[in-house]
Amino acid sequence: MRAPGTPARQGTLREHNLRLVLSHILDAAAGVDPTAPSRADVATATGLTRGSVSALVDLLISARLITELPPVSSARAGRPAVPLVPARDTVAGLGAEVNVDYIGVRALDLSGRLLGQCLTSGDFRGSDPAQVLGELAALVRELRAELPGELRIAGLCLALPGLVDRVTGPLRQAPNLGWRDVDVTGLLTAHPGADDLAVRLANEANLAARAETRAGAAGDSFVYVSGEVGIGAAVVLGGEVFAGRHGWAGEIGHTVVEPEGPACTCGARGCLEQYAGKDALLRAAGRPLTDSAEDLVAAAADGDVAAATALRRGGDALGVALANFVNLVDVERVVLGGIYAPLAPWLTAPVIAQLRTRVLAAAWEDARVQVAAGGAHAAMTGAALAVLRTVVEDPAAWVPDAVGPVS
Amino acid sequence: MRAPGTPARQGTLREHNLRLVLSHILDAAAGVDPTAPSRADVATATGLTRGSVSALVDLLISARLITELPPVSSARAGRPAVPLVPARDTVAGLGAEVNVDYIGVRALDLSGRLLGQCLTSGDFRGSDPAQVLGELAALVRELRAELPGELRIAGLCLALPGLVDRVTGPLRQAPNLGWRDVDVTGLLTAHPGADDLAVRLANEANLAARAETRAGAAGDSFVYVSGEVGIGAAVVLGGEVFAGRHGWAGEIGHTVVEPEGPACTCGARGCLEQYAGKDALLRAAGRPLTDSAEDLVAAAADGDVAAATALRRGGDALGVALANFVNLVDVERVVLGGIYAPLAPWLTAPVIAQLRTRVLAAAWEDARVQVAAGGAHAAMTGAALAVLRTVVEDPAAWVPDAVGPVS
Repeated sequence: MRAPGTPARQGTLREHNLRLVLSHILDAAAGVDPTAPSRADVATATGLTRGSVSALVDLLISARLITELPPVSSARAGRPAVPLVPARDTVAGLGAEVNVDYIGVRALDLSGRLLGQCLTSGDFRGSDPAQVLGELAALVRELRAELPGELRIAGLCLALPGLVDRVTGPLRQAPNLGWRDVDVTGLLTAHPGADDLAVRLANEANLAARAETRAGAAGDSFVYVSGEVGIGAAVVLGGEVFAGRHGWAGEIGHTVVEPEGPACTCGARGCLEQYAGKDALLRAAGRPLTDSAEDLVAAAADGDVAAATALRRGGDALGVALANFVNLVDVERVVLGGIYAPLAPWLTAPVIAQLRTRVLAAAWEDARVQVAAGGAHAAMTGAALAVLRTVVEDPAAWVPDAVGPVS
Repeated sequence: MRAPGTPARQGTLREHNLRLVLSHILDAAAGVDPTAPSRADVATATGLTRGSVSALVDLLISARLITELPPVSSARAGRPAVPLVPARDTVAGLGAEVNVDYIGVRALDLSGRLLGQCLTSGDFRGSDPAQVLGELAALVRELRAELPGELRIAGLCLALPGLVDRVTGPLRQAPNLGWRDVDVTGLLTAHPGADDLAVRLANEANLAARAETRAGAAGDSFVYVSGEVGIGAAVVLGGEVFAGRHGWAGEIGHTVVEPEGPACTCGARGCLEQYAGKDALLRAAGRPLTDSAEDLVAAAADGDVAAATALRRGGDALGVALANFVNLVDVERVVLGGIYAPLAPWLTAPVIAQLRTRVLAAAWEDARVQVAAGGAHAAMTGAALAVLRTVVEDPAAWVPDAVGPVS
């Protein structure tokens, strides 16, 4: 799309219309009930002429961004339709993540298919950024060695549990890693395997929310809350993640539950993380911090009163914070991700009770709270999708040079 | 601007470029240091040819949307430049408001100049919508009788202290008026003086924030918080008010300060309104609810300890709620509007202290809190500006029909 404030001219038409055609074909493939459109379908949907669409489709096929399926006869008269779908195994996006208890990277192709991944568990609290990013680069190298040689890598996006400055680039602060003002890109690309990649950084909850948008079950307007040791959140409106002025929106883990509550790693008191973060829940349940969310659920299901109480109180605190969020930002659904997905059977009832009581908007009389559909490590999927989006936004960069203007 | 997902075609060029030229001339006039651009300046700024700009400018002059000032000689060689400015007294937007203790309407022309206003004080708690909107229609009639006959009225926008549904239109809920699911537009346009107007509704804080954007002192990324009996807020990002899915964003008055705090008019407990709304502040200071914000400030300045304590505690609560807002939404400034403008000398210090302690982003080490520049009844100004914006968005509708296509 043209930026506001620039005039409409013929010169931008080819790029605009290439984007339009590619987006339509990729969006159709990513739908909940995917139907591969024909050239005629694309023309109808975009308002472009069939001739223009055919020329643009040929360009996208030559760039190996889309491909044709065998023709399908329809009930209507005329030639059989040729379905158009995203190309497989030709272009990949790499999605990586550093979180408090794991690091990893996965590769997705333009159809959204997982081509491979490498993961390592660990404890990265108070870790050395240079060492951790060296380990991550080794995982990237290992993954790339497994991928087909002819695959073109569009870049890498790295999910981080903290404030990533989208204006100036570096990680500002990740309280639970103990990282502050780290040149993450520089440290990662210092290693072979990552030194030839275009790298971008983003907040893990924002990326997980992007994966959730693609998974489709939450509609296009929701708050995604990602529970780990820390708690991140992201707002999706109209299918787009709303990242705020600097990219720091959604720091729900440091919103206040009780102004005089317990001290937090961030230096303030009474933050949500101290009531509903993974460590806080395990501590309140009297369990070791090495337990998983699944261990906590199993204990509560076995009649462990301390575990059940910890989950109910955590759910109350989470509900208060989410009610504030919905009052301020106005969305239709709340999606529980990260450890809140396995904990949802215990958290959903107290969260809904708080939302019903506290959200002013009448729509929340029918509070919609649901479990994330993006699966484990959704932030890595969202990161890979973010890379693939750069392909959709500039398909002209992938089209062979020799071709003249088409509009 | 063209909507995403529609193809670029020649047919939309004239409308697009008319918008572009008109916006540029109006924005230049609204700047902090206004400089009226010439045709050549507009061509440079928009990237359009001088010939196109001249033709478009002639159309806008014939539509009486802009006008020429006397030529100005410059130091450079060549013909003197003819400055272009918004037309005065030719097109007006009406901005109206119903709030808890006043109703009114004002008229602004395209240059943003106040052409006139009619205001009435009162107590509209638990009021009858039909009666109040009849009184408002009488004020509209009175104002229109004072305006020049040749003035064209582009419409009326009404600011309301509550949830206005931008999808379906009616007011959903205004807790302090006691209004719920009211067909405000129907009740207002049932009366002569308003029955020929295109009427739209919006939240008062969103409109006051729009006026603040125009006033320019807060930049283009801020949270505007509007204190009255209730407390509204609006987020501005990139110069645009972010209204959320339904238009209900910014209900900061019903975010939680203390989960077990005092009961609120909305049915929940511990809402900010019960700590920092006008009635809550006056009650905590032991003063009658008929007192003004200025009375409260005068008492505190005279050494009234109860008044000073009420203001400090109100400022702490407001700071907690604003810290949550900034953590969730990521903006650069907080603007204190409504009664918080006169109360700012007492509120700013506790608000800044809470922001510095609680906002995760390092930028808030330099917390920026400032007093609204939009003046009294800023929501009415913002409402009139919202109407005028519809003119800028579709100038072609104001251009005489007989003119052929220009691009």
